Amino acid sequence: MNNYSFEQLSVGQSESFEVTVTSEMMDCFLKISGDTNPLHNDEEFAIEQGYEHKVVYGLLTTSFISKLVGVLLPGEKCLLQGVEAKYLKPVYVGDTLTVTGTIDELHESVKRASIKVIISNQNDKKVLKGKAEVGFLK
Amino acid sequence: MNNYSFEQLSVGQSESFEVTVTSEMMDCFLKISGDTNPLHNDEEFAIEQGYEHKVVYGLLTTSFISKLVGVLLPGEKCLLQGVEAKYLKPVYVGDTLTVTGTIDELHESVKRASIKVIISNQNDKKVLKGKAEVGFLK
Repeated sequence: MNNYSFEQLSVGQSESFEVTVTSEMMDCFLKISGDTNPLHNDEEFAIEQGYEHKVVYGLLTTSFISKLVGVLLPGEKCLLQGVEAKYLKPVYVGDTLTVTGTIDELHESVKRASIKVIISNQNDKKVLKGKAEVGFLK
Repeated sequence: MNNYSFEQLSVGQSESFEVTVTSEMMDCFLKISGDTNPLHNDEEFAIEQGYEHKVVYGLLTTSFISKLVGVLLPGEKCLLQGVEAKYLKPVYVGDTLTVTGTIDELHESVKRASIKVIISNQNDKKVLKGKAEVGFLK
């Protein structure tokens, strides 16, 4: 786990990791969220709607931002204050995603970092574009 | 599950549900996200940092927006396009949260609804303030 202080960060600094979405993650997300929507749970329904398979929950994909900031950038001292996400393309079980965060702005007076987030799939297509605002623990 | 079409929605329309955060949800979220940050996993560390207990992942609390839009508002036809969340107060395991969505704007030309989201705890304190942008399936 990284452990950057505010002072150790600079604009443009970047971290990334890869993750493959599994059926177990879908089951887990259903248990947490209670979102039984058929787009995420019924293969036939999703195909009728023009998708290749059941679609991975947008907020499951968004959850990877938690590791990005809590483990990598800044890591241990992270205090997540806010998140934004836009969903650009569907994600399917089996997709391997690359989650990348880049320091966009550093707000010295409040010791807060704005991190630009891009999540891409194995075909290099952006599936999520977003932002995380992080403060720092002692 | 609700099944509102775009035409059936009106500004000010609201839906809400209650959910109690459990240890199982925390375990599940760790499995999905891979976020091993001690603030969410080490009671002693969290208390040293001035919290009452281990803090629930912000993005776990955000996950409840998935049910809000996918099951209730608009329900079956929901196509989540984007989410924003600001974390206002810590959430702990055992907290009972009320998740409320209210239609804020309806964009007729693109058939998209902006939904204001408030999540409050059992002491009526707002823990999350956010927004969801939803489109509609066929």
